Order: sequence, then structure tokens, then C-alpha cells
Amino acid sequence: MTINHQWQLVQRPSGEASTDNFAMVSAPIPNLLEGQVLVRHHYLSLDPYMRGRMNDGKSYAAPQPLHSVMIGGTVGEVVDSRHDKFVPGDRVVGMGGWQDFSVVEANEPGLLRKVDPTHVPLSHYLGAVGMPGVTAWHGLVRIIEPQAGQTVTVSAASGAVGSAVGALAKARGCRVVGIAGGADKCHYVTQELGFDACIDYKQHADYLSLSKALKAACPNGIDGHFENAGGKVLDAVMLRMNAFGRIAVCGMIAGYDGNPIPMVNPSLILVSRLKVQGFIVSEHPADWPVALKELGTLVGSGQFRPRETVSMGLDSAPQAFLGLLKGQNFGKQLVKLV
Amino acid sequence: MTINHQWQLVQRPSGEASTDNFAMVSAPIPNLLEGQVLVRHHYLSLDPYMRGRMNDGKSYAAPQPLHSVMIGGTVGEVVDSRHDKFVPGDRVVGMGGWQDFSVVEANEPGLLRKVDPTHVPLSHYLGAVGMPGVTAWHGLVRIIEPQAGQTVTVSAASGAVGSAVGALAKARGCRVVGIAGGADKCHYVTQELGFDACIDYKQHADYLSLSKALKAACPNGIDGHFENAGGKVLDAVMLRMNAFGRIAVCGMIAGYDGNPIPMVNPSLILVSRLKVQGFIVSEHPADWPVALKELGTLVGSGQFRPRETVSMGLDSAPQAFLGLLKGQNFGKQLVKLV
Repeated sequence: MTINHQWQLVQRPSGEASTDNFAMVSAPIPNLLEGQVLVRHHYLSLDPYMRGRMNDGKSYAAPQPLHSVMIGGTVGEVVDSRHDKFVPGDRVVGMGGWQDFSVVEANEPGLLRKVDPTHVPLSHYLGAVGMPGVTAWHGLVRIIEPQAGQTVTVSAASGAVGSAVGALAKARGCRVVGIAGGADKCHYVTQELGFDACIDYKQHADYLSLSKALKAACPNGIDGHFENAGGKVLDAVMLRMNAFGRIAVCGMIAGYDGNPIPMVNPSLILVSRLKVQGFIVSEHPADWPVALKELGTLVGSGQFRPRETVSMGLDSAPQAFLGLLKGQNFGKQLVKLV
Repeated sequence: MTINHQWQLVQRPSGEASTDNFAMVSAPIPNLLEGQVLVRHHYLSLDPYMRGRMNDGKSYAAPQPLHSVMIGGTVGEVVDSRHDKFVPGDRVVGMGGWQDFSVVEANEPGLLRKVDPTHVPLSHYLGAVGMPGVTAWHGLVRIIEPQAGQTVTVSAASGAVGSAVGALAKARGCRVVGIAGGADKCHYVTQELGFDACIDYKQHADYLSLSKALKAACPNGIDGHFENAGGKVLDAVMLRMNAFGRIAVCGMIAGYDGNPIPMVNPSLILVSRLKVQGFIVSEHPADWPVALKELGTLVGSGQFRPRETVSMGLDSAPQAFLGLLKGQNFGKQLVKLV
């Protein structure tokens, strides 16, 4: 009998998340029922949105229940199947959670999707050619709607979403300027990802200083901004937005730990006639096929080479997740299980 | 020889605007050149946007120049003409400024428009069937895009723009809830303008208290909000917005006096997937004819009965303007010159 190990949320954080919030639980894998598929996870995805789910407050998604497996995207391999569309050996992407194995009701649409690991490496289906990539695509294409020659900025530029925003905006003929934390990340953003410039926000004590750096990097102002961070980055960008600029709000990581961070000067929304719009990629299923196709081509052709930070073994998941929240990862944060 | 009197801006305000910022200047009216029209103003419009123009900082419009006539909408009558499309007696609306007469280059498109004073009273062409009405129309129809049965809120609900938002939203089958300052204004908003409810923001010490009152008045949440005020009203409304809510940002009057007022919880833009968009009506000329037609019908049929506060005589303009900034007016603020 095979034993499955899983991380459960056992305590909601008050303030910063900590390893005490999680506990490892083990149990035998049950026999499959008709229509079910057993998946062995190769990679587990760690993403900032998980922090929001750990809270009990009003949010766009139901809170992660206590004493059940932490939610999360996974790629892996079918090891047993009682569904005629899946056979052992199939490579699949799903929402298996922080555990070694998952039992999936394969008849429910969207829960399990076969992928081709010869086209792009399996792990990228959790990143550039997965949810983070589609997130970048929707915010850029549907909200920012960039035109060739316009300037697009993106915060957390070296991350899974930010790097895809850059690749997609460059493919549309934009000037792309990243904002990231630290010289290493900025070097990667310009040298490997091919952004036109990158600003290290850690070099700026306040939003006014950061805004000056943005002015230098964006001599024609900013037409579109993809926000993954919030706080002083957003305040700085807003000062530099051109008339009729569009801001896609994808993440407010700085505000997850309880205290909301105010927007310093919301009157700029009026002064510069901005559109500021929040979105969640899972609510736009119609965009997934077209987005995945473009992202698969960009990655498959080598035009976009996303970086990954891979943590080894299920045991390492909580620490890797807390590191992600502090920006210690570099590109897409994964946990390798097999 | 006829003498023209005009108010000029002679000093930019530091902090609150005051009567010291203005000075009355008199001069003879020059002879008309070919293509010019002389208009005697009957009414002068006072509007919150004028306060923004008095500053020297970056804004969506050039600052009001010092030592020249204060900008402003006017309706009046042609008294002399060297243009073949205008004859003495024509009723016209334009941007004549804070003065008795204006000389208009009638060949410049958009500077002077003939109106029909038998259809609606002349003064309404500065309010409900003029710039404030079109402002309401654009924000509601183009940004909020309300559906029948949805709930729409509007701040400064008894004002020229707010009252028109209510009339247009009621005509579209919405539940309309106003926010205004004082019991008198709230009574007017519900009893005369026909809003479903109105909340007196002066009865609430902070945005959380105001938000509770909004929850009671909007049992199905808020789908669209028209913002004329900013500050705590916007913070309170954001807490009550439904998923995919739309906020049209038309005014941030509370922030005009130098210090920007922060938005308390911008992460709600993400949590509730809001669209927050600023606009200026003068940048959307294509909307004017269709908007004016609908507004003219609503007013002409008596379905929408906008209220006016009329100050008598050009001398009274600065005091009336300062009162407007403090919310002392009731409906559209005008100065009657003839």
C-alpha cells in the first residue's frame, strides 16, 4: 500500500505566514473509483496567491480550509486510471495540491489536462506555459492593450508572471521596463529576458526616488503597467503614467499580511485619465487556449527562456513558499517531488 | 462706449482658495473684426474643475493664466455679429468666462453653439443639458455601463453632475443610491430627484461607518459608482463594490487643496476585480450630441427637474465659487448677470 504525504494548513497566520501554519500528514492512497485517475506529482507550483487563501477574510476566492491539503498547481504523470481518456504514463497538469499524489475526478472539466513534455519541459506548464503565463497574457492583452512603440512597465519583473509580461510585450513591439529587487534580478531581466531596462526598487527609499528612476528609464512616459506588487512601486509608476494609461492589477503582495497599503495619490487616476483594473485569470477561461498557444511558441522557439527556482522534496515546500513571499526566489518557484 | 467687467485670477492659492485670488478689471469692448461675435452673458457657470485650473501643477489641463479672465461656461445672447451664421438675439452657449461680455471667434469650431430657449430654460444649457449633464452621461454610459436591476451609487448626488447621473441611471432601470452632505440635500435627492435612497456622509465620522450605511442602502452590493468627491466616500464605496464593479472617477474635490488624500485599501481593486477609470468630458466630443439629446428629452419632459443655486450679479462670483467648493450650493451653481 502506497503512502501519500501532504501539507495541510493547520493554523491561519496572524501577520506574517510561518512554518507553524503547516503540518505534514500521511495516509494511504485509497482505491480508485470509476472515473478517477491517480497522478504522481513531479513538480508542485508555489504562487503568491496562496498567501491570500490562507486568510479567512473576504477575498475573491474561498479561504483555504483548515486541516486539508494546501491548494496548488501540479504537473505529473498518470500512474493509475479508471477513466478511458487517461492511461498510465500520460503527462498531466492539474491542481493536485501540496502532496505526492492526487486522486482526480477526471470527468470534471478543467481538472486535468494532458500536456506534451517534448514540446516544452514539463515544469514550464506550471509557469510560462501555464497559469502565470496566461495571467500575464490576459492582463497585458485584455487590459493594457499595448500598441507597438508604447512603453510598458512591470513589477516583480523577474518572476513567473512578470517575465512573461515582458516577453509578450516585446513580441508586440513595446519598450519594456522591469522593476525588480536586487542587482542580480535586474541583470537577469535585461540580459537574459531582453527587457530594455530594469530598476532595482531596493535602491530607492521612497516612491518619489523610484519615480525619478522611472522617468529616466521611460523617457516617453508609461502607457501600460502590469502590477504584481503594489505599495510604493504602484505609487511611483502612477506619477509617470501618460494620459489614458492602463494599469492591470494582478498582485498586491505587500498588502497580504493584514494591513492594507494605501495608494498615495489616487487623484492621478483622474488627472491622467487612467484605467486601473483588477483581474483573476481563472475567471477568463476563454483566453487560455490562445494564450497558451502563443506562450508555447515563445518558449518552444527559445525566444522566451523563463528561469526557475527549484526546491527539492515535499519537505521543503513551506520554507520555499515563505521565501517566495519575501522575493528570495528567482523566476518561477517550484518544488521538485520526483 | 460699453464697458466690460471681468474677474481675473491675480494670485494662485496656497491651500484654500480665497477672494484675494481674484480681482475685478474693467475695459471698453473693442470693435468686432470679421468673423467675430459679441455675446452678452446671461448666466455664468461655476464648476469644481475651476479650482484645479487655479493651481500651477501638472494636471489634465493647462493652468488658468494669471491676469486674464477666469475660464468658465456661459449662456447669453448675441448683441453684435460680423459672422453670417449669428445674428443679434440668438441664444448661445460658450466658454465666455467670468465677465459681462465676450468677443468670440465664431469660425473656430465648438466655441459657440446656438440653443433653443423654448425647449428648456436657458440656464439648463450650463447644467443638466450642458457640460455637467454630458459628464454624467459619459461616466455612466461609457465607463459604468449599467444594466437594469443593478445598483449604482453617486457622490455629490444633489449637484449638477450627480443629479444627472441619477436621472440617467433611473431611466436605465437601476437602483440608484446617492451620497450627499446634509439632511436637506438627501431629502431633495430622494423626494425630488427620485433616487431610491440617499446617505448623509456628514452623519458618519469615518469611512467604515459610512460603509455600513451603504451596506444597508445597497442590499445587493454596488455594481457601479460615479465618484465626484474622493476621500472617505470612495473608501467606503470600495468596500461594498460587487465583483466586476466599475467606478467612474469624475471628481476628487477633497484633494484639490494641495494635499492628496490616499486611497485606504487599493487591494480591493484586485480582490473585487474592479475597474477604476478617470475621464474628462471634453475629450469625448463624439458623445455630446447623443448625450445632449437624451438629457434634453429628460428635462423637457419634466422627468428630470434639476435644481439651481443662482447668485445675483458678477460681483458675487468669487464668493459663490468658494461656497461651491464647500458644498454650500444646492444643485447647479450659477451666477445671473442679466
